[in-house]
Amino acid sequence: MTKDAVLGLDVGGSSVKYRLASVTRSDRMPDALDEGRAPTPAEDPVAGLAELARRVTAGVRLDAVAVAIPGIVDAERGTVVRSANLPALNGLELGPRLSDMIGVPVSVLNDGRAAAVAEARWGAGAGIRDVFTLALGTGIAGAHVVDGVVVDGAHGSAGELGHVVIEPNGAWCTCGQRGCLETVIGAPALRRAWSSAGGEGAPSAMFAAYEACDARAVEIVNRAADALADAILTLLALVDPGVIVIGGGLATSPHRLVTLTAASVAERATFHRVVPIVPARLGRWAGAVGAVAQAQTLAARTEEAVA
Amino acid sequence: MTKDAVLGLDVGGSSVKYRLASVTRSDRMPDALDEGRAPTPAEDPVAGLAELARRVTAGVRLDAVAVAIPGIVDAERGTVVRSANLPALNGLELGPRLSDMIGVPVSVLNDGRAAAVAEARWGAGAGIRDVFTLALGTGIAGAHVVDGVVVDGAHGSAGELGHVVIEPNGAWCTCGQRGCLETVIGAPALRRAWSSAGGEGAPSAMFAAYEACDARAVEIVNRAADALADAILTLLALVDPGVIVIGGGLATSPHRLVTLTAASVAERATFHRVVPIVPARLGRWAGAVGAVAQAQTLAARTEEAVA
Repeated sequence: MTKDAVLGLDVGGSSVKYRLASVTRSDRMPDALDEGRAPTPAEDPVAGLAELARRVTAGVRLDAVAVAIPGIVDAERGTVVRSANLPALNGLELGPRLSDMIGVPVSVLNDGRAAAVAEARWGAGAGIRDVFTLALGTGIAGAHVVDGVVVDGAHGSAGELGHVVIEPNGAWCTCGQRGCLETVIGAPALRRAWSSAGGEGAPSAMFAAYEACDARAVEIVNRAADALADAILTLLALVDPGVIVIGGGLATSPHRLVTLTAASVAERATFHRVVPIVPARLGRWAGAVGAVAQAQTLAARTEEAVA
Repeated sequence: MTKDAVLGLDVGGSSVKYRLASVTRSDRMPDALDEGRAPTPAEDPVAGLAELARRVTAGVRLDAVAVAIPGIVDAERGTVVRSANLPALNGLELGPRLSDMIGVPVSVLNDGRAAAVAEARWGAGAGIRDVFTLALGTGIAGAHVVDGVVVDGAHGSAGELGHVVIEPNGAWCTCGQRGCLETVIGAPALRRAWSSAGGEGAPSAMFAAYEACDARAVEIVNRAADALADAILTLLALVDPGVIVIGGGLATSPHRLVTLTAASVAERATFHRVVPIVPARLGRWAGAVGAVAQAQTLAARTEEAVA
């Protein structure tokens, strides 16, 4: 028997992660039927993604595809509004055009939101109704997922925890404000602080130095954790989520920044409803897994419309 | 013909505001069939409210009642968890007991949230899907209303803009943190600042002095507006509402604090989606009007259940 399957694509600057999974209505994450990476098509992105989709879905009955994109997406129309990393996609009607080429419904979504939905549904937030996910890297992306759906505000721009001001009169931020959380714990800020203190290497080297009790690393990392804790106290007061999931390059194993931040929040909280602050579980595949989740929803909706 | 009506009660420390309105499914605010104040029952609050309800609804067919309470409410059970101003209500199963006495469904809700729902549905936020309402007084209450429903977080405690930290290392707040918005613009803080500067009278006298260009008042009021603007920038970044409605004693006519805050937000915003910041419209009756809105919903639900 041919299996009904959905395909999730997570399109990055240099490679596309793909993940094929059986159609399911279960709450459990479906196992991958196939999973891998392919180079991001350089020339004609729609034709390139169509070819990839055909190749990895040979032998299954494909019901739906979702494509996660690093940029601003008009989810309703399936268009890419703007992608800094993939300018070839700018303004492209990716959803409808890819759907025409491969003959199944295609949904387009932002990659950070895809990862947040994946963590909320099948990752560190599984089983909790109200999940706030942070991704710490060069920038800081936040997304609030309630009942599996991103709560994104009146203009789709809620969740910008990276641009909450932590240090009034602090360093200038790329956004034009001073003292945003990103000016303290964004990867470039940590890199600068570490280098100014005489440290060598990337933030990962700094975290390793922290584990070896290097006093310079301890000071920078503790300050980062306290700044993140300040922002999280504001988040608890305003949004009151049920769990906070922290992922991204700066929060990966050994998760030191996450555990220090959780301790700092617990120590400073007063009236706040303190919730678990936990590391993300799905790692670098979260975007592709979130695209699979989105494709499952799309397949279920299409089936209902037909029935 | 006997009219179908609903009753909204807004229970305060010394008086109960009541508002009787026709049952309607229209988007317009129904006119009051009757409206007024009665003393808050001192002894047996359930019997006292039942008597008031019977008296003001004589001659109409009553479909539902909603009671707004200054305190923490378990809306599902209709109980008052804790009310600092009305300790006689603490732990009371107000909804079920009042319903037994008057023979119609009774809903219980927090008064601040009632006012927010009223402003969102029929006041300054009417016609906008996503409304954040602030009430400035001794404390600062915030409530986010989307599609007419309060979005109150995983533990019912979202919207605490008054306890967002604006001045790290600032004055101690009653909540245990330092530099919360309330420590700068709560009524007691404004009263202290005005008195320290040699001013006389309540914050209302200070706002009058501002209009007369009193330099001391100008300094305090401008600082208050900037602090509120800082907190609102955080709100825009995290929650991204469609409009911000400001009410409460400190924001009443001539609305100077509201207009100064809106100007300060417009000046400081960078990436933020700036939205209208407007005075509340329903004034001191917002709680009773919100109770009417809640009672309308309850009447509609009861009718559907019967049909």
